[in-house]
Amino acid sequence: MGYNLLKGKRGIIFGALNDMSIAWKVAELAHAEGATFTLSNTHVACRMGSVTELAQKTGSEVIPADATNLEDLQNVVKTSTEVLGGKIDFVLHSIGMSLNVRKKRVYHDLDYNYLAKTLDISAISFHKLIQTAFKMDAMNEYGSIVALSYVAAQRTLYGYNDMADAKALLESIARSFGYIYGRERKVRVNTISQSPTVTTAGSGVKGIDGLIDFSDRMSPLGNADAEDCAKYCVAMFSDLTRKVTMQNLFHDGGFSSIGMSLRAMKQYNKSFDSDDVQDLY
Amino acid sequence: MGYNLLKGKRGIIFGALNDMSIAWKVAELAHAEGATFTLSNTHVACRMGSVTELAQKTGSEVIPADATNLEDLQNVVKTSTEVLGGKIDFVLHSIGMSLNVRKKRVYHDLDYNYLAKTLDISAISFHKLIQTAFKMDAMNEYGSIVALSYVAAQRTLYGYNDMADAKALLESIARSFGYIYGRERKVRVNTISQSPTVTTAGSGVKGIDGLIDFSDRMSPLGNADAEDCAKYCVAMFSDLTRKVTMQNLFHDGGFSSIGMSLRAMKQYNKSFDSDDVQDLY
Amino acid sequence: MGYNLLKGKRGIIFGALNDMSIAWKVAELAHAEGATFTLSNTHVACRMGSVTELAQKTGSEVIPADATNLEDLQNVVKTSTEVLGGKIDFVLHSIGMSLNVRKKRVYHDLDYNYLAKTLDISAISFHKLIQTAFKMDAMNEYGSIVALSYVAAQRTLYGYNDMADAKALLESIARSFGYIYGRERKVRVNTISQSPTVTTAGSGVKGIDGLIDFSDRMSPLGNADAEDCAKYCVAMFSDLTRKVTMQNLFHDGGFSSIGMSLRAMKQYNKSFDSDDVQDLY
Amino acid sequence: MGYNLLKGKRGIIFGALNDMSIAWKVAELAHAEGATFTLSNTHVACRMGSVTELAQKTGSEVIPADATNLEDLQNVVKTSTEVLGGKIDFVLHSIGMSLNVRKKRVYHDLDYNYLAKTLDISAISFHKLIQTAFKMDAMNEYGSIVALSYVAAQRTLYGYNDMADAKALLESIARSFGYIYGRERKVRVNTISQSPTVTTAGSGVKGIDGLIDFSDRMSPLGNADAEDCAKYCVAMFSDLTRKVTMQNLFHDGGFSSIGMSLRAMKQYNKSFDSDDVQDLY
Repeated sequence: MGYNLLKGKRGIIFGALNDMSIAWKVAELAHAEGATFTLSNTHVACRMGSVTELAQKTGSEVIPADATNLEDLQNVVKTSTEVLGGKIDFVLHSIGMSLNVRKKRVYHDLDYNYLAKTLDISAISFHKLIQTAFKMDAMNEYGSIVALSYVAAQRTLYGYNDMADAKALLESIARSFGYIYGRERKVRVNTISQSPTVTTAGSGVKGIDGLIDFSDRMSPLGNADAEDCAKYCVAMFSDLTRKVTMQNLFHDGGFSSIGMSLRAMKQYNKSFDSDDVQDLY
Repeated sequence: MGYNLLKGKRGIIFGALNDMSIAWKVAELAHAEGATFTLSNTHVACRMGSVTELAQKTGSEVIPADATNLEDLQNVVKTSTEVLGGKIDFVLHSIGMSLNVRKKRVYHDLDYNYLAKTLDISAISFHKLIQTAFKMDAMNEYGSIVALSYVAAQRTLYGYNDMADAKALLESIARSFGYIYGRERKVRVNTISQSPTVTTAGSGVKGIDGLIDFSDRMSPLGNADAEDCAKYCVAMFSDLTRKVTMQNLFHDGGFSSIGMSLRAMKQYNKSFDSDDVQDLY
Repeated sequence: MGYNLLKGKRGIIFGALNDMSIAWKVAELAHAEGATFTLSNTHVACRMGSVTELAQKTGSEVIPADATNLEDLQNVVKTSTEVLGGKIDFVLHSIGMSLNVRKKRVYHDLDYNYLAKTLDISAISFHKLIQTAFKMDAMNEYGSIVALSYVAAQRTLYGYNDMADAKALLESIARSFGYIYGRERKVRVNTISQSPTVTTAGSGVKGIDGLIDFSDRMSPLGNADAEDCAKYCVAMFSDLTRKVTMQNLFHDGGFSSIGMSLRAMKQYNKSFDSDDVQDLY
Repeated sequence: MGYNLLKGKRGIIFGALNDMSIAWKVAELAHAEGATFTLSNTHVACRMGSVTELAQKTGSEVIPADATNLEDLQNVVKTSTEVLGGKIDFVLHSIGMSLNVRKKRVYHDLDYNYLAKTLDISAISFHKLIQTAFKMDAMNEYGSIVALSYVAAQRTLYGYNDMADAKALLESIARSFGYIYGRERKVRVNTISQSPTVTTAGSGVKGIDGLIDFSDRMSPLGNADAEDCAKYCVAMFSDLTRKVTMQNLFHDGGFSSIGMSLRAMKQYNKSFDSDDVQDLY
């Protein structure tokens, strides 16, 4: 592209791990659109190398942080304003992890220490980040803060486990803080509810392939991919969307508004023996 | 059952055609719960005989009416209060029909005269009925008016055609008039969004079997059937729910809050060749 | 009333403190409707005396428990099935508390230890309770579990603070576990989103009177009170609503579906000097 | 601005009347962003002169049309593709009118001929327009169709009358046709739910000033104005939002996610006598 949509804007991008990450694509596109920004990820992720590659490509500094740690977040915000030379215009929060999922604890056998961690990492970190920026008065007026969410916050999907609850909490935090940050400093806070996306985080989850196929066939435009999502994030960071706040925005090729599509129904009906189906169509 | 939940209450039930109809089940249950009521359906439907059978079983009078015709509706309301000996406590609107569906006009080739009829019969008739009752001051305080809807009002389902738009309009009318009737006379107005139900109206629709199967496997409690729905209607007519108004109430075994269930996903995955699937689970 | 709607049903009611509590009213009505049940509240609350009074009136046993403590919850469930002589048919969760609210930490200056407690007490306790019952196989088929929520889960209300996020999490847990409990044992899980209600918990909150007045004038039927809510809970525990699950049910006199009412607007407009208003009406 | 976001794109803009119209602002901005387009409005509106002024400023042709008339719509689409030299990339539908409102028929005394007109003009015209474009295969892949809506589609606002039902129908049509147009040609269809906006259409409505004030104080960013809305429309027409479809997008400074704001509550509380209020804060 290259519209200069983010020319002169400063940002912080959390969660870029490798070139499959949505946050990675956002960084690339924000760079192409004229923004400067810092990158943040966990200390472990930052040591793994690819983040440095992205930093070099986009002329960014990497600031490792545990997003649940207030001191780390203060350091990210402080260093970002110093490095970038002014207050921040946009923030991307692309952070989520469930130990219950990783350790294969199903939803009716949750480990509550893991649940607390899921919520802290995937949702409360968003509050901590915003509260930190708010207290440090680090955002410009009409700045834009976006977190990535998923339709599981509204509708239960088999296997998504306690991440569904984390996403519901995340979206609530966006509303609650969106009200205050809007009222006090005109900063907007939104979540983008993205199609299931094949990233390193997502891959390897049992049953994910079937779900992604179903989601794709349900959506009239198919699943939105990471690059599509980056474009939408840039639109939400830009001055075109200054009065949009406290919203959860579905970016999913239509999935969220579909009850049953022809394509998915045709596929579903193939599952029956021909004797059972006869002529459904 | 037999709780006497509707003892002493008077009602009008629209749309009972035969013993598969939801309205039929509502009539039977309302009778068992102590209500008296009148039955109304189109002139053609009333001549077909089964409605008379229901009327006899429940000690009800049948009042034929075209629900889009204001004079007919005035007659239903007037006759009902006379026959039942007082103001009305509950109304069921179970009316819907699409000529576009019947004549196989797909949604991107609608006949607009048919569309106007779909909306008039399936949605505006609800407004006409309520306005008629309102103007005649025919409802008791805390009376309850219910119309039957479907999740297509929120989410597009292949093949449901202009009935989706009619249901969206119907639900909006429930809110709009619910506000006024509540404010002026404490009467509540709600819609019940019911699982797809095998009735004479529904049967014969192309592809409906596959959809009903899918809906059933998606819903943790399975599809709600007509008898279940009758129970919920009785709850909504009773004094237990006096402060519920302007709501669309999902009565669907959980479908509306499901993105993907294990049962539906397993069935869906059977549709793929075994080579493709390998081990999704 | 006295319909025998809950005849033979066994329940557990959490959260009755005194005769202003919604849970108290639910207990009284469930008793009148033929149910037997146990009462649970915190150890401190149980020592305060009124709970004992309720227990005597309703022939119930009181089982003190910290609802965030798994052993306590196991004891409540185990003791309840023993005392009541069989599996449980209904559960009410009326539990919520925010230390941030109590300690006057505003939403942009949250104490994160307090937030963790808010979520644990007000939302995660619901998961712990359900998981405990699930693992002990303590619920009958078509049992009904209800938690009390508030519209703040969807829409931000000034001053409700982190309780809004707790309610969003609570409603998500109802969906997530409702899916599994429905699928595995036909048990339904719902939340009732109740009008702001003057209880001991609510009273004393700064600004609450103005909000309750506004809410009442916005709602065509006025705010629903604790007794209304008890009736709705009984309807949700009864066999009339067996196919309703994973829902958040607004019980609020219509508030949730109102953008602006005539009554509230008239009051609002009184706030302007007469010179400013001239003739808005 | 001037990002060249719509460079090379062709559009049709319905509903520009004068420089207060949202459609007018969209036309100006789309022009600045490099688009070419035609303008359409009713025959009467087109004769009134200002539309010609806009046409001259933006190098556009004016094509008068009754948006409820299929032949007129065919002419708009055909002429537009001819004049612009190719298929269409974006369409704005900013059309709405209620004779019931104009003739002061309140919602519980609707004239049903007027209601049919309200729905035809304000909602069904959107279906007619899309069906016309679809049948003529007049849209490019990933074209974007937007209609303007209002939160009254979800929440009842005193005085908005049958326009609320029209907006609910409009949003449903966007979903229903969005599914088909997406599936068949990758064209997206959305509605933007805009703050109440002072335009010629809106002004003069009784009580509108009070409502706009309330809406503004409820919204943390204040009401979005016509120019803000134009920017959002351009974002939705651009290639940044290609996977967004079947959505209703709130563009309202946060209003839709607010239950009660501090600013509105303070104003509301001023309405009470000082003796009544004492210290709500």
